[in-house]
Amino acid sequence: MPDSLIDLRSDTVTRPTPGMREAMATAEVGDDVYGEDPTVTALEAEVAALFGHEAALFAPSGSMANQIALQLVVPPAHELLCDADAHVVTYEIGAAAAYGGISSRTWPAVGADIDPDVVAAMVRPDGYFAVPTRAIAVEQTHNRGGGGVIPLATLRELRRVADEAQLALHCDGARIWHAHVADGVPLVEYGRLFDTMSVCLSKGLGAPVGSLVVGSAEKIERARFIRKRMGGGMRQVGVLAAAGRYALAHHVERLAEDHAKAARLAEAVAPFGVLATPARTNIVPLDLTKSPLDAHALAAAARDEGLLISVLGPRTARLVTHMDVDDAAVDRAVDILTRVLRR
Amino acid sequence: MPDSLIDLRSDTVTRPTPGMREAMATAEVGDDVYGEDPTVTALEAEVAALFGHEAALFAPSGSMANQIALQLVVPPAHELLCDADAHVVTYEIGAAAAYGGISSRTWPAVGADIDPDVVAAMVRPDGYFAVPTRAIAVEQTHNRGGGGVIPLATLRELRRVADEAQLALHCDGARIWHAHVADGVPLVEYGRLFDTMSVCLSKGLGAPVGSLVVGSAEKIERARFIRKRMGGGMRQVGVLAAAGRYALAHHVERLAEDHAKAARLAEAVAPFGVLATPARTNIVPLDLTKSPLDAHALAAAARDEGLLISVLGPRTARLVTHMDVDDAAVDRAVDILTRVLRR
Amino acid sequence: MPDSLIDLRSDTVTRPTPGMREAMATAEVGDDVYGEDPTVTALEAEVAALFGHEAALFAPSGSMANQIALQLVVPPAHELLCDADAHVVTYEIGAAAAYGGISSRTWPAVGADIDPDVVAAMVRPDGYFAVPTRAIAVEQTHNRGGGGVIPLATLRELRRVADEAQLALHCDGARIWHAHVADGVPLVEYGRLFDTMSVCLSKGLGAPVGSLVVGSAEKIERARFIRKRMGGGMRQVGVLAAAGRYALAHHVERLAEDHAKAARLAEAVAPFGVLATPARTNIVPLDLTKSPLDAHALAAAARDEGLLISVLGPRTARLVTHMDVDDAAVDRAVDILTRVLRR
Amino acid sequence: MPDSLIDLRSDTVTRPTPGMREAMATAEVGDDVYGEDPTVTALEAEVAALFGHEAALFAPSGSMANQIALQLVVPPAHELLCDADAHVVTYEIGAAAAYGGISSRTWPAVGADIDPDVVAAMVRPDGYFAVPTRAIAVEQTHNRGGGGVIPLATLRELRRVADEAQLALHCDGARIWHAHVADGVPLVEYGRLFDTMSVCLSKGLGAPVGSLVVGSAEKIERARFIRKRMGGGMRQVGVLAAAGRYALAHHVERLAEDHAKAARLAEAVAPFGVLATPARTNIVPLDLTKSPLDAHALAAAARDEGLLISVLGPRTARLVTHMDVDDAAVDRAVDILTRVLRR
Repeated sequence: MPDSLIDLRSDTVTRPTPGMREAMATAEVGDDVYGEDPTVTALEAEVAALFGHEAALFAPSGSMANQIALQLVVPPAHELLCDADAHVVTYEIGAAAAYGGISSRTWPAVGADIDPDVVAAMVRPDGYFAVPTRAIAVEQTHNRGGGGVIPLATLRELRRVADEAQLALHCDGARIWHAHVADGVPLVEYGRLFDTMSVCLSKGLGAPVGSLVVGSAEKIERARFIRKRMGGGMRQVGVLAAAGRYALAHHVERLAEDHAKAARLAEAVAPFGVLATPARTNIVPLDLTKSPLDAHALAAAARDEGLLISVLGPRTARLVTHMDVDDAAVDRAVDILTRVLRR
Repeated sequence: MPDSLIDLRSDTVTRPTPGMREAMATAEVGDDVYGEDPTVTALEAEVAALFGHEAALFAPSGSMANQIALQLVVPPAHELLCDADAHVVTYEIGAAAAYGGISSRTWPAVGADIDPDVVAAMVRPDGYFAVPTRAIAVEQTHNRGGGGVIPLATLRELRRVADEAQLALHCDGARIWHAHVADGVPLVEYGRLFDTMSVCLSKGLGAPVGSLVVGSAEKIERARFIRKRMGGGMRQVGVLAAAGRYALAHHVERLAEDHAKAARLAEAVAPFGVLATPARTNIVPLDLTKSPLDAHALAAAARDEGLLISVLGPRTARLVTHMDVDDAAVDRAVDILTRVLRR
Repeated sequence: MPDSLIDLRSDTVTRPTPGMREAMATAEVGDDVYGEDPTVTALEAEVAALFGHEAALFAPSGSMANQIALQLVVPPAHELLCDADAHVVTYEIGAAAAYGGISSRTWPAVGADIDPDVVAAMVRPDGYFAVPTRAIAVEQTHNRGGGGVIPLATLRELRRVADEAQLALHCDGARIWHAHVADGVPLVEYGRLFDTMSVCLSKGLGAPVGSLVVGSAEKIERARFIRKRMGGGMRQVGVLAAAGRYALAHHVERLAEDHAKAARLAEAVAPFGVLATPARTNIVPLDLTKSPLDAHALAAAARDEGLLISVLGPRTARLVTHMDVDDAAVDRAVDILTRVLRR
Repeated sequence: MPDSLIDLRSDTVTRPTPGMREAMATAEVGDDVYGEDPTVTALEAEVAALFGHEAALFAPSGSMANQIALQLVVPPAHELLCDADAHVVTYEIGAAAAYGGISSRTWPAVGADIDPDVVAAMVRPDGYFAVPTRAIAVEQTHNRGGGGVIPLATLRELRRVADEAQLALHCDGARIWHAHVADGVPLVEYGRLFDTMSVCLSKGLGAPVGSLVVGSAEKIERARFIRKRMGGGMRQVGVLAAAGRYALAHHVERLAEDHAKAARLAEAVAPFGVLATPARTNIVPLDLTKSPLDAHALAAAARDEGLLISVLGPRTARLVTHMDVDDAAVDRAVDILTRVLRR
């Protein structure tokens, strides 16, 4: 993308900073398929510790981290419950079913506003007749749910539901950093609620590549095997892990700035009746049902003015703030959106 | 089961009548893997014609018929939409995901009361990012939905939704005969709405074994291949098909009697506040949420009195009428249920 | 097929005898999905006992019985070793990989002449790098191997190989009856060598439909679940099991007659240089490499004379004797083949 | 690994050189999931051009590149033929079957000495009965085959076999660079023989991470989708692609040095009767069948002296030369091996 464009499509578009580049260039590396890359090993230990888990495993993408975790907790022909808008059954190209043989049923797409009783009522028992449920997955923050943050109390209720039915609880925590910053919940507090987690270093934190699966030592041992089967075993990948370590050290707390930028954008578009839900974190969800512009038209008009946004559906779109969009760019984005929506 | 027991667990428990036994004993047969069993071929042609489709294929179970149909219309890593209580994602042991690689998302468990707009809103487009939706499945009548009948108008709306998004519409028509009898809709009228159907000869119709997949000639040609892969290619299976032909000739219209028996049972239990929904067909769904007896306790108490019923969940149960339960047995069942629920 | 044709394509084409029909017509039945069909239960116990195993499970086809067994002993992403001409990787439409996720490597197609050292050398150990081998499968008698019988000594060697590497040994015993009759090895002697077996009632034994998986009680408990997922759970299937019980009681020892008929056919074609290997059981394998007729031409010419044979490859074909081909028909077949090959 | 150790386990252990680090540190990057990373795009174009194909796609590992290619050319429940020692059915953890549903049969483990007639005889035709063969895979150079080089004439014969049976021909070309250098065959000459290829930048060429799938534009378009499903969609992955471009520019022709080093090692061990086959490229395959030391004992003894080697089986081991082993290290390795083998 030309640098003159303001890119609010996703927080994945960030480019490594000079400091991060430097960390990468000087990273000590080894062959991680043999378990000998010290930088990867250090990153895995750090991330596990952040969430109070025993172990973690580096993966080339959030999708792979999620799918490894799902394969860990749901055997083929068993069941996963998640919401109908969950990343794991929407944006991961059918991998859970196609590669994991995992059957899924979904509760309605309510983003972060989960009703634990609805989830509990969906659980199927073990036995000869029905597909046995094995896991519940939640997404924190919720991507298609406008960056919504699942309240800690809801997560605790879901943990109770999972415990009663002896299910695993997985967190797609690609943006759990944003939830931590928004709600002030310590990462370790989140960590203790989940059997498995995926966390991402390249969504918001600014690393070029990398996610991790988090769990018990036994699970991560099996995860290493699954990762190899998925084709995620890499060699001197410490060059990427170094960027991840840098991101964790420097780019977590600054997410508050991205949230503030999103709030400014939300405030700007709200008067036009297109704000789907309040912007809790770094995502501004747009609902264009009552707008004269549909999502494609809005995106096209904005692009003509130098602003890129994401189309999620015929009448839904999204703005995402991140490290590479500074205050001046947000000013320009507000200006462009105001002009386009006013037409 | 001892014959003294009244068995209302399922309409699958019926035993072949003397006439049906005679038809089986004298059936002309051949090797159906070579396509040379004349009785199977005749049954397949009859069933296809009943629904106005080009072809049909015999299968050893309703589950296999459904799964063949789903594999026909949803490639691996693509998506099926159905309700959260659908037989295809509940009672078929995860086959859609495990064997078909089919990803599924579900609308809430509302039985026959489907809102086509809810379904339409769940459809994902083709493209690089999301799992593309390929089919919608409905169940007529709806098993866990208390034998409810999806209105023809709803089905037509779903057909429209499917057409607009270029999706296949599959009908799990295990008990479509009951819908036909209850609502008076011609089978061919149903048939024209669906790309694929499964219909069952052993649920209500009294045949010992057998379901069919219904569809276009091209689809059924592929279905034959999939059936072999599933292990459903059988040899001189005309002995079973003969029972199926007999059932179609003699046992469809009499389902009205089973519906009347279910209505009597429903009337008997309604005063105790345990009738989940009206009994539209041959299933009486019980909701024991407000009853002092939970489902297991009710089933156990009824069994002590000589009546078998099905437990579906901690507080849900089911009575199913069928050919092998005559009026006297229904009288006794009413008596037993009244006594047990009155306690 | 018109009855005037002599059908030597396969021993699956046999039609039930009057005695078998009578057994089917009077069979006591129940709902086998609920485990309540007494005739099925009796058949399963009989077959388990024949092979000295704890339990057995009825299935609608030999393919399903094999695939259930393979899914029992080889988890997804683990490895099966078998020969390159094995039924399980040739005629079961890819089910082992597609439904079981089972990786396979094969030793060369040598029919019954297996070299246990070759098999032993293929085994991969458990560990992080290679696909772990989990089972070896053999086929007794060997279908594409011309009905060859694996010697007991070879099987014992393979058992030793399996034990040393802690692998399961599966027998596709569709025609193990023929091996028993040909080599005089008691069925229970075979049974003790295998962890799982499939045996077939409709290949040679004359039943219209049915195979069984044989194994430990624990395995068969799991097999019941897998069978349901494969769509093989049937209801009043005692009508088929009755035919199977009749076949076991009346049609095993008579296979010696079929072997004699095959020997006569082999003797007739041998002078033309087209007998691939001696006919050990009821299959006469033809190798037409040096014949002026290729397999399709031979089959077409024979068919014109009223004889049906199977084409297996461009230059390979097969004659199979069975209950429905009497001595007079064999005479005619000899006559036809002699005339056709002489041209 | 301590740098004092001489690491001949694999050519994957190389660490990026200063020049390569510099290229990575200054790489222009973008979000490759959106197709916007210019360095990745450039690398893909370069590699496609090298082999005369239309397109290529970056992947995080050779296993993923192979598995993407196999999923491109073999639909689920169809068949792949390869040798029994092929990387794709040995070291990729069962992914072809478990994720691709791909059925495999194998010819004997003969490394690079493939007999095209043996392969041709294994092909199964399309049709109702057998698993249809869809592709043949070869490995150039052959890893478990001691780095053997498949002669161009053999590859041309295999192309003819594939064409006659309308099969795809895939090349696992992880070390095709070594074949090119050893036999002097232009890469484009190899390229024209295959429908799909995988090539690796981190085996021998010294890049830290990265392989590519090579094929037609249509195939690579589909490959992008499959890569995302496998979890291989990465963001600013130009940092890795830059290393790959550097490797292609600087490290291909120098492989001749690694071959020379391997030849010296082979010469040193040959007198002990443990050289399995001549060292054609950078791999020295050891056969310890007649040695007093088994593979584990040899590896342990060598390690005690500061030399790391790979154990492949109870009596097979491997030495691999690469960029990070200089002549002095080879001298020391020769010395250590000589001493250890002499004991």
